[in-house]
Amino acid sequence: MNLKMVFNTLGNIMKTEALLLLVPLSVALMYGEKLSVMAFAVTIAIALFVGFAMTIFTRSANRIIYAKEGFAIVALAWIFMSAVGAIPFVINGDIPFYVDAFFETVSGFTTTGASIIPNVELLSKSSLIWRSFTHWVGGMGVLVFVMALLPSISDRSIHIMRAEMPGPVVGKLVPRAKDTAKILYLIYIVMTLAEVVLLSLGEMDLFESFFHAFGTAGTGGFGMKADGLVSYSPYSQWVIAIFMLLFGVNFNLYYLILIRRAKAALKSTELWAYIAIVLTCAVLICANIRALYPTLSDTVRHAFFQVMTLVSTSGYSTADFNLWPEFSKGILFLLLFVGGCAGSTAGGLKISRVLLLFKVIGREIKQSLHPRSVNAVRLEGKTVEEKTASGVCVYFAVYILCIFATFILLSLDSATPGFETNFTASVTCFNNVGPGFAKVGPMGGFSFYSPFSKVILSFTMLFGRLEIYPLLLAFFPATWTKRCK
Amino acid sequence: MNLKMVFNTLGNIMKTEALLLLVPLSVALMYGEKLSVMAFAVTIAIALFVGFAMTIFTRSANRIIYAKEGFAIVALAWIFMSAVGAIPFVINGDIPFYVDAFFETVSGFTTTGASIIPNVELLSKSSLIWRSFTHWVGGMGVLVFVMALLPSISDRSIHIMRAEMPGPVVGKLVPRAKDTAKILYLIYIVMTLAEVVLLSLGEMDLFESFFHAFGTAGTGGFGMKADGLVSYSPYSQWVIAIFMLLFGVNFNLYYLILIRRAKAALKSTELWAYIAIVLTCAVLICANIRALYPTLSDTVRHAFFQVMTLVSTSGYSTADFNLWPEFSKGILFLLLFVGGCAGSTAGGLKISRVLLLFKVIGREIKQSLHPRSVNAVRLEGKTVEEKTASGVCVYFAVYILCIFATFILLSLDSATPGFETNFTASVTCFNNVGPGFAKVGPMGGFSFYSPFSKVILSFTMLFGRLEIYPLLLAFFPATWTKRCK
Repeated sequence: MNLKMVFNTLGNIMKTEALLLLVPLSVALMYGEKLSVMAFAVTIAIALFVGFAMTIFTRSANRIIYAKEGFAIVALAWIFMSAVGAIPFVINGDIPFYVDAFFETVSGFTTTGASIIPNVELLSKSSLIWRSFTHWVGGMGVLVFVMALLPSISDRSIHIMRAEMPGPVVGKLVPRAKDTAKILYLIYIVMTLAEVVLLSLGEMDLFESFFHAFGTAGTGGFGMKADGLVSYSPYSQWVIAIFMLLFGVNFNLYYLILIRRAKAALKSTELWAYIAIVLTCAVLICANIRALYPTLSDTVRHAFFQVMTLVSTSGYSTADFNLWPEFSKGILFLLLFVGGCAGSTAGGLKISRVLLLFKVIGREIKQSLHPRSVNAVRLEGKTVEEKTASGVCVYFAVYILCIFATFILLSLDSATPGFETNFTASVTCFNNVGPGFAKVGPMGGFSFYSPFSKVILSFTMLFGRLEIYPLLLAFFPATWTKRCK
Repeated sequence: MNLKMVFNTLGNIMKTEALLLLVPLSVALMYGEKLSVMAFAVTIAIALFVGFAMTIFTRSANRIIYAKEGFAIVALAWIFMSAVGAIPFVINGDIPFYVDAFFETVSGFTTTGASIIPNVELLSKSSLIWRSFTHWVGGMGVLVFVMALLPSISDRSIHIMRAEMPGPVVGKLVPRAKDTAKILYLIYIVMTLAEVVLLSLGEMDLFESFFHAFGTAGTGGFGMKADGLVSYSPYSQWVIAIFMLLFGVNFNLYYLILIRRAKAALKSTELWAYIAIVLTCAVLICANIRALYPTLSDTVRHAFFQVMTLVSTSGYSTADFNLWPEFSKGILFLLLFVGGCAGSTAGGLKISRVLLLFKVIGREIKQSLHPRSVNAVRLEGKTVEEKTASGVCVYFAVYILCIFATFILLSLDSATPGFETNFTASVTCFNNVGPGFAKVGPMGGFSFYSPFSKVILSFTMLFGRLEIYPLLLAFFPATWTKRCK
């Protein structure tokens, strides 16, 4: 393990976080929130101090990074970012307890959107924007951001990207990982600004537009009102719904469109599966909840919005789906697992992984009928490597076991929230969606959980966002010992 | 597809069922239940008629059976057995509706023990013993029974055995599948009789002893009282608990002991994992529920009993674990999935499959650290074939998807039983356990479900008992067309 290089990169990430904290700091200055100005300034100082300390002592590090170092950097980076990012909430008093603040920050960076704040309307503007901004930063990836910014990261940084980017296969758009990161962030910024413009054309002011655009872009879902998006106009709700859908698409497709290869983009199996899932689920739910809403347009809007919010793992809501019939709730429950496309900012299993899973199962069934046949699994017109195909099934197994593990740890909670709450809390946090059912439903929250459960759920969100392995490996002593290629 | 041979075997199975129905018929005669005598006699006539019709028209069948035919025979046999076995309940009026009777019979043969009977005390003795006897027959396998009995089945019948026997790998004890079947049934009969003797030494009469021994042997769990085993003495409860544990052990180990190779039997990793799981869970639950019961011996008995009943997938109960703290319920929920050892009468995933799953996951983690390393997975001192290892993960994925599919279909039920009920009903039926939580808890039942849901759950139990593939393949047209080796 090249520990020096790991800490050198961590140091740079801390410096980057100091830079990112300038955003809420300026908001605090703008709105004259004195306590928050102090809170963010102090945190920036801490981040800079830690960052420089780390980089100065590791200046001599050789730049070589292997898979192991990639995993370690990503795991530690996300934990450090969250640990430091939680500090301002405690200092300005918006979230007095550090464990709560840590939960909220992890929920932000992992783009989960699960919140422990009972009265979100009481938060300062700067805390609000920092919560939302963590979604935006976490959506595309903290490390990807650092890679796009810093010249010091070597070209082997694909190992970092691989550990942080979601989905079963990570492709580079262009030969250098660094350039890929830049292109991704450019697309991301342009799309976010487009949403800000469209939202500000409705009833939202500029602050609200930025707030919601950050949350949508990262498919996060922190709200600024206790009832979510219920009180906003249908126009704003539709804009957010459509952008949630767009941010759930693989960003490689946008790159293809940019370089005038739209035809190739439209051939994507994953894209069509994504659209098919959204349409099917929304239509089924429309039929199921028709009687609950006065007009057809309300029904359609609420059905589509809730499907899009869960499939993109955002977690905004325009209706309390906790009160919907069980069939609709059942569909939404399954959507918690699915997630958006690989290479998007969405969480969950990812559509391409679900597709691969079904294809591998189909092959297994075929082979039990024709034991001597040999069939390769194909996706997006390409043969999938055997290692990837079997890896998807193993991933699914680890994933289910992690959800079970979270569930059993939550059942130790003295608040006894009940089976439905605990189980859907595990599922929704692991998939970085946000709301679950019962007490953690769209109009509920996570504030009633004990500090122990909140720590468990924080790590659940991190496990989900980093797709298990990087964080799991951090618990193996072998990761930290001798080097291995 | 050698359809003739499939139906020839089915015919023999129908004749065998006629033979099995003599058991409840004699009980009906013994207790002078006139309506039941008629009910069972008519059903025997139907079974014989169908059986002879099938065998006479397919006398010319060639005896060759491949994997395909094995799957088809097993799938159809279980459906036919249940369809015919349900008839007497309708005729004697104990279960007036056929769908209910079909559910109850499937629950019997699959050794689930989920019941739709609200007042089990009102049943006739013959219906009671037939319910319990279906557990006994289904436990070791209907086809295995037929193979042990009939001379006409060819030596290729290992394909049938493979499709019906639970667990990731099916081994033959002796070269001929037929002889293996005989040995298994001999062990099974001796153990059942031992339990009858021990139970009748307590407060149970001979009828009750047989009734409960059949249910324990098949790890089924149908009771004859609404409160399960609550009202029986601690002695009877312990006897049943220990026999549930014994019937959850791989029968190959008993064969090894019989041929004086006890040392080899005691080396089984699966056996020790099974014991370790039972002990760990029971001790954790003891600590968690200590305050609920007056004495330590009550606490220990209830904790052990409930753990053994769920891990062996029997489903008897001595306490309403629905009322236990959430941590205990959480452990019991996870036990619903685990199941007993492969090659036992228990359902669930099976311990060896769970072990394999963890080993494959462990290897995947190791390989992401050392991408170029190659490691075979080992179990019971042997290298596991790569196909088996990856097959276990695929099986787990199909298994979870099947449970999700059942859950979503149940959510269509107009009785709106709620998330906890529907989800645990899917899990408990698929794993052939019996009780779940909430409305389908140990003191509840499945009577409130709509006929549609009952049909769904019946097939869920069959899917679980036959480990998915045989029944799934029956839905593929390709299974029924041209022959394939």
